[in-house]
Amino acid sequence: MFYIIGLGLGDCKDITVKGLEIIKSCERVYLEAYTSILTCGTEALEEFYGRRLIVADRDLVEQGADEILQGSKSANVALLVVGDPFGATTHTDLALRAEEQGIEVKVVHNASILNAVGCCGLQLYTFGETVSIPYWIGGWEPDSFYEKISKNYSNKLHTLCLLDIKVKEPTLESLTKKKKEFMPSRFMTVSEASQQLLKIMKRRKESGCPLEIAEDNICIGLARVGSDTQKVTVCSLKEMAGVDLGGPLHSLIIPAPVLHPLESEYLQKFKHVREIYDSTAPTSEKNSETST
Amino acid sequence: MFYIIGLGLGDCKDITVKGLEIIKSCERVYLEAYTSILTCGTEALEEFYGRRLIVADRDLVEQGADEILQGSKSANVALLVVGDPFGATTHTDLALRAEEQGIEVKVVHNASILNAVGCCGLQLYTFGETVSIPYWIGGWEPDSFYEKISKNYSNKLHTLCLLDIKVKEPTLESLTKKKKEFMPSRFMTVSEASQQLLKIMKRRKESGCPLEIAEDNICIGLARVGSDTQKVTVCSLKEMAGVDLGGPLHSLIIPAPVLHPLESEYLQKFKHVREIYDSTAPTSEKNSETST
Repeated sequence: MFYIIGLGLGDCKDITVKGLEIIKSCERVYLEAYTSILTCGTEALEEFYGRRLIVADRDLVEQGADEILQGSKSANVALLVVGDPFGATTHTDLALRAEEQGIEVKVVHNASILNAVGCCGLQLYTFGETVSIPYWIGGWEPDSFYEKISKNYSNKLHTLCLLDIKVKEPTLESLTKKKKEFMPSRFMTVSEASQQLLKIMKRRKESGCPLEIAEDNICIGLARVGSDTQKVTVCSLKEMAGVDLGGPLHSLIIPAPVLHPLESEYLQKFKHVREIYDSTAPTSEKNSETST
Repeated sequence: MFYIIGLGLGDCKDITVKGLEIIKSCERVYLEAYTSILTCGTEALEEFYGRRLIVADRDLVEQGADEILQGSKSANVALLVVGDPFGATTHTDLALRAEEQGIEVKVVHNASILNAVGCCGLQLYTFGETVSIPYWIGGWEPDSFYEKISKNYSNKLHTLCLLDIKVKEPTLESLTKKKKEFMPSRFMTVSEASQQLLKIMKRRKESGCPLEIAEDNICIGLARVGSDTQKVTVCSLKEMAGVDLGGPLHSLIIPAPVLHPLESEYLQKFKHVREIYDSTAPTSEKNSETST
């Protein structure tokens, strides 16, 4: 049997009881470590599970399906995935490859950022399409996510922006070489994401495009959702460009133009929110940063 | 401390290790049992946790916040919630009431239907706004959810439809009486939801309204997602009106008009999908029903 097991978002103990039992029954256990990360690190997981994990990078998961699936017709093999197993296309693909080979696949679900963002008080059913904000690298500066955010906004929906992560990415120079060299890991912060959004808005303004979202729009920065060091911050987009929420992972929310009373009330937990929402000059307010 | 702990979607063992530890440390543990249900039942949960649970109905959760929160400044009290704690507005409200009273609140996340629907192979980031389909009762026949589905569809997004559940709802007759009488529990099936959608479409057609979704549109029926008896079915909306997926809970998905190749490939797992997608007369095909 091939298992794909979600680890949730926080630390070792966010695995389900079912997931933990399966891990203990497996011959080999892979840890997918490039679409997301757990704050606690691989060693802490190994200690908690009482067994060795095989760290699976992009090459192994995307091109080494046969290696991962080997022997899983007769024995148990598991792939551990931060969040929920179906959070990334690549895991869906792996499940398909397994079934092609006649291997039974079972999934153990867990929390993902898609539902855990509810921690900021915005109603999950009022989110529109989720967008991904990629790093701008070497002149490649895609901006189509701005239009998706705008569309959600004009449809009165919130937008969850997932921020890029780069783990074990080969350098451009080494792509053609035999021995790959890797760039240092990078995780996009709410500050970097806001800066990119502000640049897109500036360009659109200059070229006369309509601008649904403006720099004074309120936004919500989230860091390490589901962990003990989780932080939630509410301020204007312009202010968010200067906010430091600490270590990864970060997410950014652009809320709908009108909030449900319960949503507004919940956001008040984060200092200065009322002032920012009420103020005609929100950028004069300090941003708020609150552990939750 | 007041804890709101997600139980996930399947059985007893879908709780996280962290959640289980907290339950064992609590003075009182409430089980919220009206916005969703676990297939395994309360007794199985009590046996697994090794402790008694207090079943919390709508009255207690929505009007008895003080009773639930009593003593949680000095001792641990938990509310268990099927899925993820922020799946329902009422839990957000309870967290606010706790904080008003100076009680610290901690949330333990878990899988919710919002991310577990990924099990059908549709990409989670391509879902639009989630809709709820309510029971039509006594001439009250709301249909605004059809427009939301249409909007998602024309924006090339999938729609997850959450289906109504009625647990411990007082009868109309007993509402004014001292002693409330309750209706039998009901859980909307994919068949009932499809029938309501078809009725709305018929009415719109008759009154000359534009019709984005038609009765031959493909849809996906899901039952007991995350449990061992999970079922996923793909067929036309017209056919779904006659499909029986067994016990609760059910959900219905209306996919976007165009699917990603990986989504199409994954849906092929469910018999007859290709025929339905390719056929000009899909209703002549048998629907497919596959345990996953």
